[in-house]
Amino acid sequence: MSVDRTRLLLDTIKRLLRRGASSHLHKIVNKTHAADLAFVFRFLTLREQEALFSFMDNVQQEAMLFSELEEEVLLKLIEDMPAEKIAGIMAQMPKDDVADLLGKLSDERSQALLDLMTEEESEEVEELLRYDEETAGGIMLPDFIALKEDATAREVIEALQKDYIDIEMPFYLYVVDDHGHLVGVISLRQLVVVPPHTKLKAIMATDVVSVQTDTDQEEVARIVARYNILAVPVVDENNNPVGIVTVDDVVDIIREEATEDFLKMAGAGEDLVESQSVFKSTRTRLPWLLASWIGGVIAFFIICHFESSLNKLIFLAAFIPVIMGMGGNVGTQSSTIVVRGLATGRLSIKQIWEVVFKELAIGFLLGFFYGFLLGFVAHLRYDMWLLGVTVGLAVLSSMTIAASVGSLVPMVFARINIDPAVATGPFVTTAIDILSVFFYFQIATLLLPL
Amino acid sequence: MSVDRTRLLLDTIKRLLRRGASSHLHKIVNKTHAADLAFVFRFLTLREQEALFSFMDNVQQEAMLFSELEEEVLLKLIEDMPAEKIAGIMAQMPKDDVADLLGKLSDERSQALLDLMTEEESEEVEELLRYDEETAGGIMLPDFIALKEDATAREVIEALQKDYIDIEMPFYLYVVDDHGHLVGVISLRQLVVVPPHTKLKAIMATDVVSVQTDTDQEEVARIVARYNILAVPVVDENNNPVGIVTVDDVVDIIREEATEDFLKMAGAGEDLVESQSVFKSTRTRLPWLLASWIGGVIAFFIICHFESSLNKLIFLAAFIPVIMGMGGNVGTQSSTIVVRGLATGRLSIKQIWEVVFKELAIGFLLGFFYGFLLGFVAHLRYDMWLLGVTVGLAVLSSMTIAASVGSLVPMVFARINIDPAVATGPFVTTAIDILSVFFYFQIATLLLPL
Repeated sequence: MSVDRTRLLLDTIKRLLRRGASSHLHKIVNKTHAADLAFVFRFLTLREQEALFSFMDNVQQEAMLFSELEEEVLLKLIEDMPAEKIAGIMAQMPKDDVADLLGKLSDERSQALLDLMTEEESEEVEELLRYDEETAGGIMLPDFIALKEDATAREVIEALQKDYIDIEMPFYLYVVDDHGHLVGVISLRQLVVVPPHTKLKAIMATDVVSVQTDTDQEEVARIVARYNILAVPVVDENNNPVGIVTVDDVVDIIREEATEDFLKMAGAGEDLVESQSVFKSTRTRLPWLLASWIGGVIAFFIICHFESSLNKLIFLAAFIPVIMGMGGNVGTQSSTIVVRGLATGRLSIKQIWEVVFKELAIGFLLGFFYGFLLGFVAHLRYDMWLLGVTVGLAVLSSMTIAASVGSLVPMVFARINIDPAVATGPFVTTAIDILSVFFYFQIATLLLPL
Repeated sequence: MSVDRTRLLLDTIKRLLRRGASSHLHKIVNKTHAADLAFVFRFLTLREQEALFSFMDNVQQEAMLFSELEEEVLLKLIEDMPAEKIAGIMAQMPKDDVADLLGKLSDERSQALLDLMTEEESEEVEELLRYDEETAGGIMLPDFIALKEDATAREVIEALQKDYIDIEMPFYLYVVDDHGHLVGVISLRQLVVVPPHTKLKAIMATDVVSVQTDTDQEEVARIVARYNILAVPVVDENNNPVGIVTVDDVVDIIREEATEDFLKMAGAGEDLVESQSVFKSTRTRLPWLLASWIGGVIAFFIICHFESSLNKLIFLAAFIPVIMGMGGNVGTQSSTIVVRGLATGRLSIKQIWEVVFKELAIGFLLGFFYGFLLGFVAHLRYDMWLLGVTVGLAVLSSMTIAASVGSLVPMVFARINIDPAVATGPFVTTAIDILSVFFYFQIATLLLPL
C-alpha cells in the first residue's frame, strides 16, 4: 500500500471509530495487512487502539501486528492485557521479537509470560535474552536447519516435509560436520534440482559467510548487504551454528540505523516519532541545542574581547556571518562524508590520518577559492586591500580548520567507540563557529591598523 | 569479511602487485569473494585492476565482479576489453545488471554487445532498457516463475527441476489466471510440504503485494521493507507479471538512497567516492558552497545597512554568532526530520500544514527557552534590560522562523517533485542565516536607543 493509501485507510478507520461502526471496522481490520495496521496504530489514541485490536479475529495477524508495532505503542497496548492473551499471541511470533518484547517488560511480568510458554520455547527465548540486543545474538532467529554432510538430497527433502514445518524461511540449509561445526551451506533450490541420492557434501558451498553471536548488528547488516545473501548464520565461539539473521531484519536495521544517524547528526534525538506531541518533541530536541547555545555565548565573549578593534573598524562585524557560514558548511560536508563512510564500511578508522589530511587539503582549496572571492568583494566595497587580505585569510583558515575538525572528530570518536554520528552534529558545528570567529579577529588584529 | 580484514586484503594485493608475485596473486584472486574484490578494485589504478583481472579464471566470478563493481570503475575497466570477452561475462550476469551496463555505453558499443547475445537474451535486455533506470521496471529481473492456478504441486516441482534451472532465486512462485493476470503467490517451501496433487489455487495467498513497472525504486524499497517480503512482482498496466525485484537489490537501494540523502543534505554531491582525488572532490563540493557564500554576502550587506545602529552599540555584533547558530541548528533539526520522514514514508506531503505548524510551535518553545536564557546573560553583562529583551526576541524570532522554513521548504519541494534532500541542506541554512540577521537588527533598531 502506498503512503497516500495508508493515510486514506487511517482517515477511514478514525471516522468509523468515531461513528462506532463495528461491522465495518471488523471487516476492514481483518482484511488489512498487519504492517498497514501497525502504521495506523501510531496515530490512534490508546482507547482507539484497544477498540481496533478487539476487532481482530486471527491470532496470526495479532502476532504480526505485535512484531510490526513500535515498541512504545506495543508496551502501552499490552499494559492491561491478560498474560494468557499475550502468551497466546507470543506463541505465534518469531522468537527474536518475543525476546525483544520480554526484554522491555518488568522482571515479574516477563517471568510470568515465560512460565506460560512451553519449556522448549521458553528455553529458546531465554537463550536469546542472554545476548546484547544490538548484536547478532540479540537479533537472530533460533530456528534454522542444520544437516549432516552425509545426508542425501532425498532424506533432506523428506525431513523438511516432516520435521521442519515450523521454520520461517528455509532458503539456506546449513551443513555441519560430526562435531556440529559449520562447514557448508546449500540453498533449498539446489536441493530440489539435484538427483535424489546426491550427498550434501558433494553440492554444498564451503566458503560460508558467518557472524559471531557478539557481532554488532550494523556489521551484520553490512555483511548481508555486501554478499547479497538472504540470511547469515550466527555461530558461537566453537563455530557451532546457533541461529540465523534474515535479510528482512537486515532491511529494518539498515533503515533504522540510517534514520538514527540522520537525527543524531542533526541533534534531534534518535527516533523519528512523528506522532509525538509538540511538548514531547520540544523536550527531546532542547538538550541538543545547549551545545550550540554555549558555543554561541563563547563566541560572544571572544568578540567582546576584540571589542576595541571592532570599535575602530565597525564593518568587520558585517563579515562574521559569511565567515562562520562557510566554515560551518564545509565542516558539515566533511563530517557527513566521514560518518556515512564509516557507517557503510567504505572508510575504516585505520585511515584516520589519510582521511583527515585529504579533507584538510580539500578545505584549503575550497577556502582559497571562496576566500579570494570574498577578499575581492571586500576590497571593491571599501577600497582597502589589507581588509581584502584579512577576510580572505579568515575564510581560508575557517574552511581549512572546519574540514579538518569535521573529519577528525568523527574518526576519533569512532576509534574510542563513541557513535560518530552523535558526536558530530551540534558539537562539530559549534567548535567550528568558535574557532572561525577567533581566528578571524586574531588575523584582523594582526593585519589591520587597529 | 570485516572492513578491517578487507583492508588487509587490499594491502596484501597491492604489495604482491608491486612485487609481481603472479602465482600468489592467482591463488588469492580465485579464492576471494567477488564482493571483496570489488572493494579492493576501488583503490587500485587501472593498470593494477587489469593485472588483477587477468588472474581471474572463472567466468562466473568475473560476472559477479562486474555486478559488484562501481559503475565508474567498471566502465574504465571494459574500455579496451574485446567485445567477445565482455559478452561472455555478460551472459553470466543478472539481466538487470546487464541492462544497467549497456545503458551506460555508447549506442554502437551497446548494439555490438547485444548482437553477440542469443536472441532471447538480447530481447529480454532490450525490454529492460525501455524502462527508466530508477523505476521498478529498470531494476527488475525478468526471470520469475508464473504458473497456472490449476497446476498441482507435483507438476510444479517437476517443472522446477527441468525448465527453471536458470532462475536465480525462486522463493516465490506467482500464480496467474487464464488471461495471464497475477492472482496469487505461494512460497517454494509451501509447495514442498503439501500433498503432491494439491492444486495451486487451493494453497496460494490471494492478497499479492505488487508494484507497477513505473513505480519509483524508493517506493519499491519501502514496500519490500514494510511487508517483509523477499521479492515483489512487477506488473504491467494489464496486471500481467513482467518481472520481480528481489530483496538484495532493495538492500542496496536503501543504503544508496540513504547515502545520497546524507550527502545532498550536506551539499556534498550525490555519490560517496572516498577513493576520489583531492581535486575531484574539491570540484564536486565547490558549487554547493556557492549558495552559502552568496547568502553570507547578503547578510554582510544587511549588517552594513544597519551600520549606524551598530556604531552606537558596538557590542550588538557580539550576539550575531549565537543568534545565527541557534537558528541554523533548529532549522537543521526540522528539515532533517521532514526529509527523513518523507524518505521512509512516515510523513506524507498531504500533511504539509500540520507538520509546518507543529514545527513552528516547537521552534517557538525552544526559542522562548534559549532566548530567555540569552537575554538573561545579556542583561547580566551590560545591566541593560532592553538589550536583554532585544537579543531574547531575536533568538525567539530566529528559531521560530528557522523551524518553519526548515520544515516548509522540503515539504514544498517534495510537492513540486524536487528531491527534498537536495533542496534542503545549504539553501535552508543560508535562508535562515539571512532572515536571522535581518530580524535581529530590525528588532534592535526598534527597541534600543540608537
